[in-house]
Amino acid sequence: MSIPDAQIYPHATGPAAATVAKHQDPQDLVFHAGWFCPFVQRSWIALEEKGIKYQYKEVNPYKKEKHFLDINPKGLVPAVEYKGRAIYESLIICEFLEEAYPDHRPLLPSDPVDRAIARIWIDHITKAVVPGFQRLLMAQDEAAQNAAREEYYAALRKYANEVKGPYFLGNEFSLVDVAIAPWIIRDYVIRENRGYKREDVNEAWVKYAGVVSERDSVVITQSERKHLNDVYGRYLRNEAQSEAAKAMRAGRPMP
Amino acid sequence: MSIPDAQIYPHATGPAAATVAKHQDPQDLVFHAGWFCPFVQRSWIALEEKGIKYQYKEVNPYKKEKHFLDINPKGLVPAVEYKGRAIYESLIICEFLEEAYPDHRPLLPSDPVDRAIARIWIDHITKAVVPGFQRLLMAQDEAAQNAAREEYYAALRKYANEVKGPYFLGNEFSLVDVAIAPWIIRDYVIRENRGYKREDVNEAWVKYAGVVSERDSVVITQSERKHLNDVYGRYLRNEAQSEAAKAMRAGRPMP
Repeated sequence: MSIPDAQIYPHATGPAAATVAKHQDPQDLVFHAGWFCPFVQRSWIALEEKGIKYQYKEVNPYKKEKHFLDINPKGLVPAVEYKGRAIYESLIICEFLEEAYPDHRPLLPSDPVDRAIARIWIDHITKAVVPGFQRLLMAQDEAAQNAAREEYYAALRKYANEVKGPYFLGNEFSLVDVAIAPWIIRDYVIRENRGYKREDVNEAWVKYAGVVSERDSVVITQSERKHLNDVYGRYLRNEAQSEAAKAMRAGRPMP
Repeated sequence: MSIPDAQIYPHATGPAAATVAKHQDPQDLVFHAGWFCPFVQRSWIALEEKGIKYQYKEVNPYKKEKHFLDINPKGLVPAVEYKGRAIYESLIICEFLEEAYPDHRPLLPSDPVDRAIARIWIDHITKAVVPGFQRLLMAQDEAAQNAAREEYYAALRKYANEVKGPYFLGNEFSLVDVAIAPWIIRDYVIRENRGYKREDVNEAWVKYAGVVSERDSVVITQSERKHLNDVYGRYLRNEAQSEAAKAMRAGRPMP
């Protein structure tokens, strides 16, 4: 859902570029994406995990195509176009993929109570992990950075203490892992710039973050760091004008 | 999820008291509730709409029972206890009821795209309607109240323009209506204190809000206004110390 505010590299690179190249043929499901966006990566990981046939389309945030805006007037990515209708919001797309492709590998357990508990932890990611990362990234002075880092550690520790291992729910990689993965593989930004260390969360986090980072679907949806750095530089200098950045400054819910 | 900060009336009154009285026998599903809380009312409306057998238990926020805290350490309401495990978060409970009681009346459409679009609008309620109501309620000076009211109107207008009628998705009352109903029937608070008028949103909103307010499941889960006024008085004076009030002041996501 990021709409970055300056010129960014126009397409995926590295392992993600190879994945994009494999998904150019027309399919029933069109995945409208932005290679840099962590919310896009969530839906992308889910598509790959489930082995769904999809056509990848990079949306240029400065020059959105008419067809894209016709089906999705807000122009948000990620968006899934399916039988002529658009679905957006990364987690809603993930739940949609579960329901529209019931014969593909499930990313939620079958028991209703287990599913609800998975969603409670996804909710923790939405309410504490994602805004915690963003707050730390945008914190400017040292005191604010220290406070934001401690708060982020607390959110991650709470999560890490519930990991059954190797994945959050146990042996099966699930939507809980999908929901947090993009913020794990981007944590080098706060390590290099905000004093964050996985070890300072706890051992369970180090282990879990390592396992998720190596998951094939996570690796192959990842672009090269050098291009991501352009995007994150603006957040680190608190100059970003994306909707997420503006919401964070105004103390509003992330869009 | 409200945890109010001062003595409040200890139990449901009016139509809600009659509903509580009918749901005292032990059942597989125990509904841990607080009569005053709009998030509780969401799950309660869903239970009633689906005709699920449940046992209602009022949680005294100042004196939580050991058993309740054992299964639900954060002590949040609403919580559903089902086969010895606790589920919380009002919308996660609603989705759980859909999945655990598949033979009861559905509150989501069957088509996966329609379900996703319903969830997009529930997300709008979460991100714009609920915090918009709360912001208007807590705004103290006139300029802040005017700005908050216009922002709230814009969020409601956007929603109202998508109502198919009579309910959000058409003829069937759905989880979208469930998610917004508690903020419709409480809007007399902002009408009496913050200059809000349903007519100032638009005609579609007046009609829709009227229809939802009269829905049986909404009416029978409602307590008398005089007791709710004690709770809302603290918000109107910006003295509330609930988690929701503190989050709003700090510019954090609603808990």
